[in-house]
Amino acid sequence: MFEAIFENVRQKSPLVLSVTNYVTANDCANLLLACGASPVMTDEPEDAVELAAACGGLHLNIGTLNQRTIPAMFAAGKRARELGRPVVLDPVGAGATHLRTETASGLLREVRPAVLRGNISEIKALASGESAARGVDADAADQVTEDRLREAVDFVKDFARRTGAVIAVTGAVDLVADGERAFCIRNGHPILSAITGTGCQLSALTAAFAAANPDQLLEATAAAVCAMGLCGEIAAGRLTREEGNASCRTYLIDAMYRLTPADLEQGARYEVR
Amino acid sequence: MFEAIFENVRQKSPLVLSVTNYVTANDCANLLLACGASPVMTDEPEDAVELAAACGGLHLNIGTLNQRTIPAMFAAGKRARELGRPVVLDPVGAGATHLRTETASGLLREVRPAVLRGNISEIKALASGESAARGVDADAADQVTEDRLREAVDFVKDFARRTGAVIAVTGAVDLVADGERAFCIRNGHPILSAITGTGCQLSALTAAFAAANPDQLLEATAAAVCAMGLCGEIAAGRLTREEGNASCRTYLIDAMYRLTPADLEQGARYEVR
Amino acid sequence: MFEAIFENVRQKSPLVLSVTNYVTANDCANLLLACGASPVMTDEPEDAVELAAACGGLHLNIGTLNQRTIPAMFAAGKRARELGRPVVLDPVGAGATHLRTETASGLLREVRPAVLRGNISEIKALASGESAARGVDADAADQVTEDRLREAVDFVKDFARRTGAVIAVTGAVDLVADGERAFCIRNGHPILSAITGTGCQLSALTAAFAAANPDQLLEATAAAVCAMGLCGEIAAGRLTREEGNASCRTYLIDAMYRLTPADLEQGARYEVR
Repeated sequence: MFEAIFENVRQKSPLVLSVTNYVTANDCANLLLACGASPVMTDEPEDAVELAAACGGLHLNIGTLNQRTIPAMFAAGKRARELGRPVVLDPVGAGATHLRTETASGLLREVRPAVLRGNISEIKALASGESAARGVDADAADQVTEDRLREAVDFVKDFARRTGAVIAVTGAVDLVADGERAFCIRNGHPILSAITGTGCQLSALTAAFAAANPDQLLEATAAAVCAMGLCGEIAAGRLTREEGNASCRTYLIDAMYRLTPADLEQGARYEVR
Repeated sequence: MFEAIFENVRQKSPLVLSVTNYVTANDCANLLLACGASPVMTDEPEDAVELAAACGGLHLNIGTLNQRTIPAMFAAGKRARELGRPVVLDPVGAGATHLRTETASGLLREVRPAVLRGNISEIKALASGESAARGVDADAADQVTEDRLREAVDFVKDFARRTGAVIAVTGAVDLVADGERAFCIRNGHPILSAITGTGCQLSALTAAFAAANPDQLLEATAAAVCAMGLCGEIAAGRLTREEGNASCRTYLIDAMYRLTPADLEQGARYEVR
Repeated sequence: MFEAIFENVRQKSPLVLSVTNYVTANDCANLLLACGASPVMTDEPEDAVELAAACGGLHLNIGTLNQRTIPAMFAAGKRARELGRPVVLDPVGAGATHLRTETASGLLREVRPAVLRGNISEIKALASGESAARGVDADAADQVTEDRLREAVDFVKDFARRTGAVIAVTGAVDLVADGERAFCIRNGHPILSAITGTGCQLSALTAAFAAANPDQLLEATAAAVCAMGLCGEIAAGRLTREEGNASCRTYLIDAMYRLTPADLEQGARYEVR
């Protein structure tokens, strides 16, 4: 199934608009190119609205949100939503500051994104309205581990039901769920958490996968999560003893460039609950 | 000829000011350092005007244009123009949105850049006032190919005559022309289109080459285009079967760092029409 | 001594807030992750103030200062100062434009950073109120060389005394001083000056080292400078004949990822005057 989904990305080469942070924008663009999509980025509301109408999918990311980018995200998000383009929201640092929590909550409510992708602390902050995150990384206490998996699956399905979005929570085990089904994904490598923006890159990738597979949003999101994790495994596997997170960052995008739909089909490790 | 032009860049180490997008700013800065120039970047109008007076050349790039950077580009552009510093305009996404088309047209009219560098869709949008581009990549239908080369050369020379700028159109074949002569350049490699910002990097490089060779703008621009294409060939040639666009991005800048003026003279592949 | 200081960074994993330029933000974030710290970035005043209260250390960098980031830097800086969090100020391009000189001077006066780190031209511009810099690189005439070391040490100690900050001046020889003692550091490699943002990265690293060692600001700053220089040596030593500044940029961060506290203790080359 993931083979056909990825094949669609490579074939259709969807135009993905990102209204995103400047810290990891370059990696998002190169990852989109690596998967076969075509990136375009803006933070100006007028420009964002016009590009939202032209794009196949929209990636909204609040990593360096500010008074210009917030209106651009709302405006582009609403326009894309009206036109039926899938919107992926990445609520970077939700729970860490009021502005982040409120902006992400507002986007969730007013744009109603097709997919919400974050770490567990961000998703919990949005689900509960409470704040517990420290910076932009997930709290250790929140981590989805094997022994808390059942509880986490229930939480994510419930939140998906309430929001109408596919929810992707990434961590040691990744969960991708709508109200009915949850993919529990075991691709990935710990070093990815030492590379800035792997979450942002995954959100951008998810927008490409969703844009090329608008009728299978749950599966497209799960495929993107598996693809990113698999590329992380490949990248980590290439590291020599002198190399670290910076080389791994390069190898991660390289791996996506070389990944075939058949590789993804074969390498994806998940179960559906 | 290109040997002496590149030698001037290495010797004079021009200060190049970029008012550019945040997606590829880091690569532009590292490529400028690799060629021997010194980069400085800003997007604040007041700061931009003062730096424009200090710089040897100015790179204006509308890739993530907004209500702060647009005035900064106009102000810096006019100041640099008054002082006789070469200005290179990169109209990223002209034709894709009204704001981009109008901003690029306005800069072309009011700043009168020494060099205009874009893909064929962007340049056609500016020449015709019409929009056809999808995102920031050139439309396949617009591509300059061998069998449409003569027509493209005429178009570019004509637009150069009308604007007074050297026009550089990059694609499968690159064209660099003023009103009289056109360099048809066959350096480069297809993988460059899978690396975000190779166009932006070329525009920044062109500003460095023009700054160091202000009396030979046509040749300096052609030399920059050949140098970038040649480095793309070298970079692509280094790729192993595991590597892709991300490694190529690194190798491209590495290649510029190692490129000698004699390498450029020997590797440049072009004819003048 | 540096072993224990670096050990604290790895153990405590301080949250470092950067209000910094978009040219090198990605490298700053990856270097922070490489050393064991946790990065978060913003440029919106409200967000910056709230994150300043949560962070262990604050990195302020005026590389692409503008009318939004300037208030964010003042607001975050004052809040961090109130709460006793160490603030590191990087006055990129002070001396090159009025806006940069005045902003850096204002931050120095109103935030009273724990550490001021720049090149010699920037530091002299702030000490004297005069401008001599060209762009963002140090003037050759200003460089700290062995035969002018004594004079430079006196200048830096005096400026440290006047400002109450630890002053770090990086160049051929690096100086780190408070009013009493100066570390003269001889780690590093010339190729670092051909990589954009190595200074920014060092400032971010210094914020991490200071955050994890708030009672030893002088030593923590000296340790960060040694660590960066040592990683530069390791990175430069890995370069093949085809590789240049772009590969070195990657290897630099890799080296930090692999560096152990014992490596730093052993590789640090300095004397105290």
